[in-house]
Amino acid sequence: MKNYLLYDKALEALTRRGVDLIRLAQVVYDLQSPYQKGLTVDICHENILKVLSKTEVQHTVITGIQMDELAEKKLWEGPLQTIIENDESLYGIDEILALSIVNLYGTIASTNFGYLDKLKPGIIGEYNNKTKGEVHTFLDDILSALAASACSRLAHSK
Amino acid sequence: MKNYLLYDKALEALTRRGVDLIRLAQVVYDLQSPYQKGLTVDICHENILKVLSKTEVQHTVITGIQMDELAEKKLWEGPLQTIIENDESLYGIDEILALSIVNLYGTIASTNFGYLDKLKPGIIGEYNNKTKGEVHTFLDDILSALAASACSRLAHSK
Amino acid sequence: MKNYLLYDKALEALTRRGVDLIRLAQVVYDLQSPYQKGLTVDICHENILKVLSKTEVQHTVITGIQMDELAEKKLWEGPLQTIIENDESLYGIDEILALSIVNLYGTIASTNFGYLDKLKPGIIGEYNNKTKGEVHTFLDDILSALAASACSRLAHSK
Amino acid sequence: MKNYLLYDKALEALTRRGVDLIRLAQVVYDLQSPYQKGLTVDICHENILKVLSKTEVQHTVITGIQMDELAEKKLWEGPLQTIIENDESLYGIDEILALSIVNLYGTIASTNFGYLDKLKPGIIGEYNNKTKGEVHTFLDDILSALAASACSRLAHSK
Repeated sequence: MKNYLLYDKALEALTRRGVDLIRLAQVVYDLQSPYQKGLTVDICHENILKVLSKTEVQHTVITGIQMDELAEKKLWEGPLQTIIENDESLYGIDEILALSIVNLYGTIASTNFGYLDKLKPGIIGEYNNKTKGEVHTFLDDILSALAASACSRLAHSK
Repeated sequence: MKNYLLYDKALEALTRRGVDLIRLAQVVYDLQSPYQKGLTVDICHENILKVLSKTEVQHTVITGIQMDELAEKKLWEGPLQTIIENDESLYGIDEILALSIVNLYGTIASTNFGYLDKLKPGIIGEYNNKTKGEVHTFLDDILSALAASACSRLAHSK
Repeated sequence: MKNYLLYDKALEALTRRGVDLIRLAQVVYDLQSPYQKGLTVDICHENILKVLSKTEVQHTVITGIQMDELAEKKLWEGPLQTIIENDESLYGIDEILALSIVNLYGTIASTNFGYLDKLKPGIIGEYNNKTKGEVHTFLDDILSALAASACSRLAHSK
Repeated sequence: MKNYLLYDKALEALTRRGVDLIRLAQVVYDLQSPYQKGLTVDICHENILKVLSKTEVQHTVITGIQMDELAEKKLWEGPLQTIIENDESLYGIDEILALSIVNLYGTIASTNFGYLDKLKPGIIGEYNNKTKGEVHTFLDDILSALAASACSRLAHSK
């Protein structure tokens, strides 16, 4: 049963953080088009929206983005504020949150997630670069997870 | 896209091992009915079949059951034959296979899986008891995973 | 390499939330003693502290507890504040965070986690009951994860 | 407590399949050396052996390799024999087995696993290429998992 409130809130949160889902669809296209004739960026975009229609995915998107925003407002206490702000390499809660999306789409999603999270192509990499005052520690992993899950959806629907 | 061949093969494998899915539906009913008015064993059964319609689930069912059968035929080599035959407690590959089902259905499925795997109610427990010559090391975990995933499907469709 | 700063911060956060680790050790003892002769609550306590000595575990403890505290301060935005405050049943980010601990300890930990998370024995259940103004949505899952991981550590060290 | 029997059996199985762990250590070195001054291939090799000293890892190595060998002997029934022989892209049980290793080493291991599983550098790729009569459907994922876990061990011990 689609939860329209949370779906809208998740899209709203992504928009608030400047995410252009068409550009994320481009990442999906680049990954998946070698295996799938006739694939278009539009179909990739639709598949990202399908991923976003699951309640668990909406929860992760909304929670992760607010965790970034709480860091921008310096509301985490003690060393955690610094850890999240700097996206410290041993801190893995951002990947863990992303895995809650990826796991729902099976092993093709897991593998693609690792690949995207390491190489950070296109729009994902822009959220990995640190702009003064902005924190996207959770968002770049969420974008990788959405793209990886859309790839798996496409592979399974062939 | 439903893979009819593999769906049939998975149902066939379960039947070959004597699994009555209506009795597994009863386990789902017992777990889920406190939270869901109007639930019936039939609805639980339908939800188990929906879980079984995913390709990844079919792969796990078919692979796990054959792993049990290979153990009955003594075809594993060295200590592994004994480990699988005796369902040794530190051997976790059976749970790992089951997690490939459970992960697809999110955290409600994971939690219910742990609970079922520990308590092994109803039909699940019968596959945990050792009958001379029979091996169900993988099957009892797969049954727990199918039931736990059906519970999560039901919870999310309320 | 033990990270003393984060270890202390994790213990401090648990203390701040009123957690008595000896009572959590009792939960571990109740679960594990049927399988392990000569087990004592003290040994269980030591094993919980060993689990807490991993950096990933410290990150999860510190992050989860602050997420609860942010909810007490009403600092989450929109529907998420209500969702976390009420520990809504479809919200699974609390279990996901707990899985980041449990996964490190293999399948025995996963299974025990599901069991504890469902039954919430002893001190875990107290954090599941809602006291006005207090939020422990993340903490009860973290306690289940710590106990389940200590059980797995014990089982593997036999 | 190190299980010497299983440790030896795991090493023996890898040797039987022609795996040179020094060449796998080279993959670890290539991935990890940009982040770690003074790293050597020898240190990477030691870390792979440490990963192999965990009982769960030994179980996975021994099980996965025998699953490949059973496919070479055509002992899987029905479509499963073809699926494993051809390493069909939707079949994810090989990745699932590998995740049982990777999960024990946290998110750095998961991410590196996805990357290695996609790019299959060095010795991993050789096991991905199909040589007539040989099946390495499970082994290439296991090698990726061992290398990814060794990377995580190194990152955490800095």
